[in-house]
Amino acid sequence: MLVIGERINGMFKDVGKAIVDQDKQVIQDLAKKQLVAGADVLDVNVGPAAADAVGAMQWLVETIQEAVDLPLALDSTKFEVIEAGLKLVKKKAIINSTSAKKEKLEKLIPLAKQYGAGLIGLTMGETGIPRDRHQRSEFAAVIVSACMEAGIDLGGLYLDPIILPVNVAQPQALEVLEAIREFQLLSDPPPKTVVGLSNVSQGAEQRSLINRTFLVMAQAMGLSAAIADPLDKELMDALITAELLLNKHIYCASYLDAYKKK
Amino acid sequence: MLVIGERINGMFKDVGKAIVDQDKQVIQDLAKKQLVAGADVLDVNVGPAAADAVGAMQWLVETIQEAVDLPLALDSTKFEVIEAGLKLVKKKAIINSTSAKKEKLEKLIPLAKQYGAGLIGLTMGETGIPRDRHQRSEFAAVIVSACMEAGIDLGGLYLDPIILPVNVAQPQALEVLEAIREFQLLSDPPPKTVVGLSNVSQGAEQRSLINRTFLVMAQAMGLSAAIADPLDKELMDALITAELLLNKHIYCASYLDAYKKK
Repeated sequence: MLVIGERINGMFKDVGKAIVDQDKQVIQDLAKKQLVAGADVLDVNVGPAAADAVGAMQWLVETIQEAVDLPLALDSTKFEVIEAGLKLVKKKAIINSTSAKKEKLEKLIPLAKQYGAGLIGLTMGETGIPRDRHQRSEFAAVIVSACMEAGIDLGGLYLDPIILPVNVAQPQALEVLEAIREFQLLSDPPPKTVVGLSNVSQGAEQRSLINRTFLVMAQAMGLSAAIADPLDKELMDALITAELLLNKHIYCASYLDAYKKK
Repeated sequence: MLVIGERINGMFKDVGKAIVDQDKQVIQDLAKKQLVAGADVLDVNVGPAAADAVGAMQWLVETIQEAVDLPLALDSTKFEVIEAGLKLVKKKAIINSTSAKKEKLEKLIPLAKQYGAGLIGLTMGETGIPRDRHQRSEFAAVIVSACMEAGIDLGGLYLDPIILPVNVAQPQALEVLEAIREFQLLSDPPPKTVVGLSNVSQGAEQRSLINRTFLVMAQAMGLSAAIADPLDKELMDALITAELLLNKHIYCASYLDAYKKK
């Protein structure tokens, strides 16, 4: 399971403020803490507040890379913000994200190819947010086909079935779980899958419990990666235990600690 | 999700001693506590120590029924112990268990029919413990066919894929999860499924964490019932949250409390 640490996002107050103040310490602390807690990749999102989004992305990428040696997921709806990050990354990055919209695919697939980057593909299209598992699979097939045609390495593609908050769109959680399973029939070897986990509990009271329960269910369905908060210890313990039960790492009495030292 | 409370089992020291001492208080406390914690059915197992197993089952059933009004799962490898319980139960009981062995099926299916009882079917056969998901499905098909032939209501049949301890048979956990999904293809409507949950963590250090993580994964695969400890609050919270995410009960901010008052 690839853990993409979600904490360096301008939507969080501490990060938003650090970007405005150019306070490296806050960002580098978050980078190091997420690394120690088990993040494999760090998501980088300048958030909605940054006046100069390109400059903020550049500053974040450089600041993070001074502190840790992890790959980055460059998270923006703006092409030029992602490209600015790609020009600076030291390791193979992940572009977060394209969708099944023609305009998005036509711009972001060549970008992924040019920089040898991985690519997250949100399974939404011209008609917006997917209705059910089947529409998710349709959009996923569009993304997979476009990547195949462009000669992109499918091993770097992560399909995202789009989680919605359970408190406003409750039936969608099961649709997402079944979509994760269905996506795996789209190619051989199966495409990878990713979820933006915290969205499932947006606005709910039991956020951590809902997040980790949904994550474990998604792991049972074959999930490959999650954008999540590795600083949530109960989440990480659940994730590691699910990996154990899926036979992904070998049992020992201290398997929780052993996993983090991997 | 049908929760079958596992605590009234002579293998637990307190219960074993209570059986020997004929101490009703201990048994009735456990019955009431499990009811309050969310058990839908109580498993009743006299354990290995009882000299007079038939007498112990009779005493347990009567003692429990004086205290709570829940259905019972009569849990024994001995035909006469189950039959002694069936003669006394006030509600529709569950026989725990038959297997795919001919000798078992020939005795226990008529018993279930005679008493209108539900039936747990362990997917093991003449060759012993199943090797993988496919052998589990083969044994499951034998049990389903035998019940169909006998005219047993399939709605009362619970197929048990047999969980093994993750510390000694790690690859079996995934085989069980996939078997739960495969079993659902055996009939329409699909047969119900059950696991003896605590077995997965037998001998491990993180028992509660392993139990609840496996349970949530099994729920994602469509599990109908679990023999488990409802007094483990974290287990019940995970179970309820998984049910929420599977759209089985309606979201509200206090959904954890709301579920228990159902």
